[in-house]
Amino acid sequence: MPPAHPRLLWRDLTIFDGRHQLPAPMAVLVDRGRIARLCASDALTAADLDGATEMGRGGVMTPGLIDCHTHLVFAGNRADEFARRLAGASYAEIAQSGGGILSTVRATRAASEDELLATALPRLGALMADGVTTVEIKSGYGLTVADELKMLRVARRLGETLPVRVATTLLGAHALPPEYQDDKDGYIRLVCEEMIPAAASEGLADAVDVFCEGIAFSPAQCERVFEAAARHGLHVKAHAEQLSNLGGGALAARHGALSADHVEYLDEVGVRALAEAGTVATLLPGAFLTLRETQLPPVDALRRHGVPIAVATDANPGSSPMFMPTLMLNLACTLFRLTPCEALAGMTANAARALGLTDGGRIAEGLRADLCVWDVSSPNELAYAVQPGRLRQRVFDGRLTDER
Amino acid sequence: MPPAHPRLLWRDLTIFDGRHQLPAPMAVLVDRGRIARLCASDALTAADLDGATEMGRGGVMTPGLIDCHTHLVFAGNRADEFARRLAGASYAEIAQSGGGILSTVRATRAASEDELLATALPRLGALMADGVTTVEIKSGYGLTVADELKMLRVARRLGETLPVRVATTLLGAHALPPEYQDDKDGYIRLVCEEMIPAAASEGLADAVDVFCEGIAFSPAQCERVFEAAARHGLHVKAHAEQLSNLGGGALAARHGALSADHVEYLDEVGVRALAEAGTVATLLPGAFLTLRETQLPPVDALRRHGVPIAVATDANPGSSPMFMPTLMLNLACTLFRLTPCEALAGMTANAARALGLTDGGRIAEGLRADLCVWDVSSPNELAYAVQPGRLRQRVFDGRLTDER
Ligand SMILES: [Zn+2]
Ligand SMILES: [Zn+2]
Repeated sequence: MPPAHPRLLWRDLTIFDGRHQLPAPMAVLVDRGRIARLCASDALTAADLDGATEMGRGGVMTPGLIDCHTHLVFAGNRADEFARRLAGASYAEIAQSGGGILSTVRATRAASEDELLATALPRLGALMADGVTTVEIKSGYGLTVADELKMLRVARRLGETLPVRVATTLLGAHALPPEYQDDKDGYIRLVCEEMIPAAASEGLADAVDVFCEGIAFSPAQCERVFEAAARHGLHVKAHAEQLSNLGGGALAARHGALSADHVEYLDEVGVRALAEAGTVATLLPGAFLTLRETQLPPVDALRRHGVPIAVATDANPGSSPMFMPTLMLNLACTLFRLTPCEALAGMTANAARALGLTDGGRIAEGLRADLCVWDVSSPNELAYAVQPGRLRQRVFDGRLTDER
Repeated sequence: MPPAHPRLLWRDLTIFDGRHQLPAPMAVLVDRGRIARLCASDALTAADLDGATEMGRGGVMTPGLIDCHTHLVFAGNRADEFARRLAGASYAEIAQSGGGILSTVRATRAASEDELLATALPRLGALMADGVTTVEIKSGYGLTVADELKMLRVARRLGETLPVRVATTLLGAHALPPEYQDDKDGYIRLVCEEMIPAAASEGLADAVDVFCEGIAFSPAQCERVFEAAARHGLHVKAHAEQLSNLGGGALAARHGALSADHVEYLDEVGVRALAEAGTVATLLPGAFLTLRETQLPPVDALRRHGVPIAVATDANPGSSPMFMPTLMLNLACTLFRLTPCEALAGMTANAARALGLTDGGRIAEGLRADLCVWDVSSPNELAYAVQPGRLRQRVFDGRLTDER
């Protein structure tokens, strides 16, 4: 049996601490699951070294990556729909033949908890092998009380099965289920009066999310969801301003949302609202790429107003079938013109904020030891090159895990 | 010691044979490095099974991937240049401070063969872990006779070091070295009269490539290189029509080029010239993405005229620092609107043609057994989802390799 509290020591690291690159070379000592010491390599004392296992020299250390927006639990597969669309089928044709998000809903409803768990495991494994130590997972393909709770239970079980922290989000207001075809308000009532109370009473949701968009739910409907979430003490988030500007970002901010996500169409008023509320703007370049969007998120305005920017995979079977966080670092730079440092902060310190984890996503003494050591020469290189297999070591809760 | 000629048997495979998906479920028997049997799983005979090791059931089998356009051997790192550009530095500022391709040339000239080998190994390992069994590697960062030959020697050594086939290409006409600042023709003379003869006599180059572009070499200069290559019995290829239309594609085709690469600006005349010559059009979506190009390659015209389309990583430290072939399958579909089947053919059968390997990149009885088995439910899924770690088994020359 491994010791309960290993003491692990790294030297000569280049460190990105969640916000900045520290002047190298640094040493890190992990003890009892926490970062016990963070200092220049030549400042280590005999007491630091006592009983410590040498974990190696050199490389780049970052906080474990935090993927703060995923739809990782789902059944079915839309690869053939992807192929049909490229062969010329229209969205309408695909919808008529049962494709699109409702095909994922049908498959997810039909799947058992164990089946959903089994299909999600390799996807989560891919994220972990690329550095993820905390992942947010949304429901939203069940769209009944029972099926939404089933998805959240699977999300919780994933966190019990693998060495990774899972934050769960109830996204009942993701799409309108066929049973409510002509009664959006009726479905929102179901979300507010049954789903949210049930998820809250079973402790299955850490937050509640909505999809505020013409093709989904109106700001007024989203507001009812936010109010219901507040009544049950749950954080809120929003998919907002992805395809048009409905003011969903500002609305979410007024309700104290942790984050507003996508935000390509967010305007200056919306940016200011996020800034005032301390709401994070989460950018999702995988969906932008996959949908071939052209409207860029207002990065300069977000910077000017000091809105924290997060970056996430949006891993999902339709608009972002991408299970590789370091690719998102690259795309956030290439497509959205973030700097590598901003992109890395977006998957560490700011991603933690987007989940309400005030102590996560950073390297500092006393904080929990969720860490990655990478075979690269600088933090910039993580965003610059797209190259699987660069994760040298992954530390979860102070212990080395073998997720390469 | 493992047996010299293992007999390996797979059943219930979905097979993409290099051109099409075969009706599943299929069986494949590999013997003495060749594909000995390809048949429906239920058509296997007792003789087929005799002495065969069962390698598993299910999954998708493709030919080993062929990355037919890379610049994998180089020294130095342009991650900091990437960061500077995103922080606002102009191309001119970066060039003035010694950045850009000439920084890679300086570093590559200064590196020993062993150093170049050591830095290329993990990059090649990443390609292999994502399914590559054949890779083309270009010179082009030495730009002296000695340094170009050094790069080609490293490329050859990579193929002797790892279980992968390496095709080498002399790309002396990649950029103008500083020593020839005002004498492009003089440098082309060096390429034609010294580099090509030396590379040919040492057997270091399988082909000769040029960069035909306003910022590189003119069609007339490229033609001199093609003529010199022909005198030494070497195949030719061209970087053509990437940033403008100089007619480089048609010129290359007239010289019987194996491939014309990039070709975003290729016009109908150029497409027809490729079709007549049987020249492959190699699409490089990584560079298109990284450079944020908007001019799409003429995919419909290539289809109409029956030009074979290949897809490659263009792995290089400047315009495509991407070391993940399955990502290129996805980008070829998303950005260039290839179908998943076309993208897969572009990294198998058509990539083989782009290297003059008439028997490669296909699954058929009698052909060499370079194969991949993937943990996906359909060939389409390889292009649809971006997810490292889906390669279940990699077979090189009839033997299982452990490159995951
Ligand atoms: Zn989403
Ligand atoms: Zn190239």
